[in-house]
Parts: sequence; structure tokens; C-alpha cells
Amino acid sequence: MQLPEHVKIREVGPRDGFQNEPEVIATGDKVALIDELTQTGLTHIEITSFVRADVIPQLADGAEVLQRMQRREGVTVGVLIPNQRGLENALEQADRFDEASLFLSASETHNMKNVNRTIEQSLAGLSEVVTTARAAGKRCVAVISTSFGCPYEGHVDPARVFEIAQELAGFGVEEIGLADTTGMANPAQVAEIFAAAPTKLPGIEITAHFHNTRGQGTANVLAALQAGCASFESSFGELGGCPFPPGSTGNVATEDIVSMLHEMGVQTGIDLEKYVAVSRHAQAVIGRSLGSHVLRAGPVEWGGTGR
Amino acid sequence: MQLPEHVKIREVGPRDGFQNEPEVIATGDKVALIDELTQTGLTHIEITSFVRADVIPQLADGAEVLQRMQRREGVTVGVLIPNQRGLENALEQADRFDEASLFLSASETHNMKNVNRTIEQSLAGLSEVVTTARAAGKRCVAVISTSFGCPYEGHVDPARVFEIAQELAGFGVEEIGLADTTGMANPAQVAEIFAAAPTKLPGIEITAHFHNTRGQGTANVLAALQAGCASFESSFGELGGCPFPPGSTGNVATEDIVSMLHEMGVQTGIDLEKYVAVSRHAQAVIGRSLGSHVLRAGPVEWGGTGR
Repeated sequence: MQLPEHVKIREVGPRDGFQNEPEVIATGDKVALIDELTQTGLTHIEITSFVRADVIPQLADGAEVLQRMQRREGVTVGVLIPNQRGLENALEQADRFDEASLFLSASETHNMKNVNRTIEQSLAGLSEVVTTARAAGKRCVAVISTSFGCPYEGHVDPARVFEIAQELAGFGVEEIGLADTTGMANPAQVAEIFAAAPTKLPGIEITAHFHNTRGQGTANVLAALQAGCASFESSFGELGGCPFPPGSTGNVATEDIVSMLHEMGVQTGIDLEKYVAVSRHAQAVIGRSLGSHVLRAGPVEWGGTGR
Repeated sequence: MQLPEHVKIREVGPRDGFQNEPEVIATGDKVALIDELTQTGLTHIEITSFVRADVIPQLADGAEVLQRMQRREGVTVGVLIPNQRGLENALEQADRFDEASLFLSASETHNMKNVNRTIEQSLAGLSEVVTTARAAGKRCVAVISTSFGCPYEGHVDPARVFEIAQELAGFGVEEIGLADTTGMANPAQVAEIFAAAPTKLPGIEITAHFHNTRGQGTANVLAALQAGCASFESSFGELGGCPFPPGSTGNVATEDIVSMLHEMGVQTGIDLEKYVAVSRHAQAVIGRSLGSHVLRAGPVEWGGTGR
């Protein structure tokens, strides 16, 4: 099996996960969990969003989290930036982060429901954000939601996804994430899109963001890997990721991906045992069982019996 | 992506699932669920085990289930046979089933803990069972547990797995299942073993049986498929499959596999919507939420919103 030797993992649980919890997690707990994550060998982490507090009260403490978390050599810190105003707020602590994560949807209906803008309006806004962020020395990552299917529109044309991606690349975005927001992707589709991506988006780092909504998260990771993708977003503990309908899973769990990668001989730089310990801590903080499989069963090297 | 056009699914939930529930499910409920499963387009089902009632009380009604379930044109009915005595009991209703499923482990320690015999002793017993079953016109399927790793011994040498499989083939077994009993398999390993299988076991149907213990169940299905495997065992609702430690998942859910296969254009003959309805019924009978993802989220064609 032809696989990359090393892949990059961007942990998005502190943003995508904490945002989707019904309760607001205490700032001190957030900071502690982030500081634990950055001591696992993880190299990329998205820690919060600079969205308006009335829109997502769970992340109202974004500026404080950014201020309090430890900055660690070798760990790239990203924040989610919804718009120019959010960017300005984040840039008040410009030395505390490295990357601005931006987002829009590949389907008009999903984009409208999510941010109340057409895709064209979103792109115009992002153009301005990217210009400002780059002028401030920030690397820009744009994630395209519903790249593999939309819950309202169904099939999403890959040509449309690449069209949007090319426009973002034209603004100066260095990395583009293709996100399967509601878990509609299948491995054959994933293989096709990720195989085409380097030609469609030369010089752009392509990242995969899969959800495990229909249990196909790791299969989609495998298909993307085989097609040459070497960058993945995921969430510790299987936190977050739009768990809808209730009881559904969202993001694929970082430790489930990392376990699979390591077992296949693909390196991530992450210490899986430490990572599982952070997810166990998150479980205690949140007070419910998290969906991560490796969290429950233990890594393969512990044998089949867990601990 | 090179994939088979059609794959065979053998549903093992009524045996592997009901056996692993802490409560004994009422015979009438078992029969109703089996009768619903055989109306979904499913072609192969393992309905019970002829194990001693004191060993697995959950399946003490095996003979009655076999007697009461509806026989349906086009549905191959299998029963698990632990030994010659179990086979003799099953053959009292010889016209009610088609296949005898046999099992042993690829690791000595697991085999000893599971059936209190060495592998050599198990093989000697199976030789006799296969001879009798074939004489009675039954097709024989042997499943080799811990083919991808053992919770006690760790790594299992594929050469040893194939050695055992070749011995079984020599007895007249028509189909051999390679089972990842405690969810230790990874896709690279799966690809290697399933790619080698047709050469090692010419003329034998090779079946894959994966567990989702570490969240890699569908990734392993994908890897096996890509290596040419076209026969899978799985369990509706994600029932059963040695969920250990508590809270772990066992078998990969039939509806999660079928969803992925159909989305990739691989046919199974199964009506996914009907299948999900049976799992929902099982959930009501058992009285707890089952692990199947598609059961919770709904098939992709329902959109991202479930029902």
C-alpha cells in the first residue's frame, strides 16, 4: 500500500469540539486541555474562534484562552476567523497565534444557513480577511464545508469545490481544507477528489477533514492517504463536528486516526498514550463518555484488553 | 478505485450479537428479527449456535430458533457448530439450514482460553465435523479468530494463519473467514493478507470479519475490498463481537458497511432502509442504543439530517 511517510495532524477539538458542547467549558479547563495537547508531539492546533460571543457563547472566552495558553516551540497555533472584525480582535494578540482559519461552504444553501451570505459574498469577505491576515504575517487556511455533499442540496459538484478553492488560492490562502461536514463522503469519491487536487491547486497544501457520522471516517482517511493527502484535521475524543441528529458522531477522533496511521507505519510525531490521557481528561471535564474508540479500547500496543 | 461490483454480506448478528448481550433475548423476538432480516435482500445469515446451553445460555434456544424461523428462497442459513455433538444436534433439523460455521483461533493462547484445546486438537475435531457435515450435504465455513493479532500474544504471523487455513481447506471447507477478533488489524496489514489469500488458498472463498474496536472497521473493509475480497461478515446494529473492555464496540455494523459499499457503487442486494428498520427494532427489543452509525444518522440518501 502506497502511503505518505509522515502526515500532519491539525487538532481542532478545542475549537470545533468545545463549540459543540451544550455546556460552556470553564476557561481554565480549556487552557489546561490545550496545554496538555501541545505536549503530546502535536504540531498544529486550532484553539478557538473569534466569532461573536452572542453567536457562539461556548467560545466567548476566545481572547482569554489565546492569552493564557502556553506557546510552545514547534506548535503552530491557529484561530478560527469568521470575518474582518474577528480578525481585528485576534490581531490584538498578534504574537500569540500563527494561522488564521477561514471557512465557507461549497453549497449555497448550507452557506446561507451557516453565515447568512451567498458564496460570492463570503468569498468577497474572505478576500479582505486574507489580505489583512497576510499583511500581519499570518498563514491562511481556508476550509470548504460540505465539499463532499450537502444535507440540503445533496450532491456537490467537485468542479464547484475546486472553483471556490482556486478563488481562495488566488487570494493568497496557503492551505485549503476539504470538509465532509455531515459525513456524506465515501472513499471512492474521496479518492477521486484528492487525486485531482494537486493538479487543480498547485502549490496549495490540501487538508482533509472527515466526520464519522456514518461510520466511514477512517475509511475516508485511508482513501485520502492513498490518494496522497498528508494533512488531516480531527478532534480529540471525537468531540464536536456538528453531531446531528442527536446521538450522531461528528469529527473523526484524532486518536483513532493516529492509531491507524501508526499501525500502518505512517508517522505523526504524536505520542498516542499521552493523547489518550488528554481525551480521558476531557471526558472527565465534560462529564460524558466521548466517542473515541481508542480512548475506550486502548491503543493496539496495549493488547486487546485496554487498561 | 478498483473494487468488486458485488459483495456478499453474511449477517452474523443473530448469533454473534445475541450471544454477547447480557440478557437473554426472547425466542419470539429473535425469530421476528431474523425473519425481518431475511426480507431485506440479504442472502446469507448465521442464525444461532449449537453450543451447550450451560456455556452460552443466550443461545440455549438455538434449535427452536432454527425450527421457527421462516425459510426463504435465496437466503442461505448458517449455524455455528462448536463440535461433533453440536453438529449432530443441528442435523436433527438438517433441512432447516445450509451451512455449518466452524471456528478456531490462530493464536494458541486465544484458542486455549476460548475452547480449552490446542490448535492441533481443534483442527483434529474440525476435521471430523467437516466430514460429517459434508456427508450431510452442508457447506462448511471456517472462521479463524485473531487472524490479525491476539490480545494475549500480540502479533500473529500471517504464515501461521495461512497454514491453519490450508489445513482446513484440506478437510473440505469451502470458505474461510479471517477474523479480527479484538480489533487489532490495520488497513496495510489487511491489504497484504487479502492480496496473498487467493494464491495461498486457491478455490476457497475468503471472507473478512472486522471489528470496530479501534474505529478502523470500515477502513479495514475498504482495504480488503481493494485487495479483492468480496465477502464480509458483519452484525446489524453493531451488535456483538466481544465488546471488551466494557463500552467498546465489537463487530462493524452491517448497515455502516452496506452504506459505504452502496455509496461507492458496490452492490450487496440489500435494501438499506429496510435494514435500518430491523436494527431499530432490535434496539427496541434490547432496550439500549446500538452503536451503528447509519442507524442514528440515517443513510446518505436521506440527506444529512436523519429522520
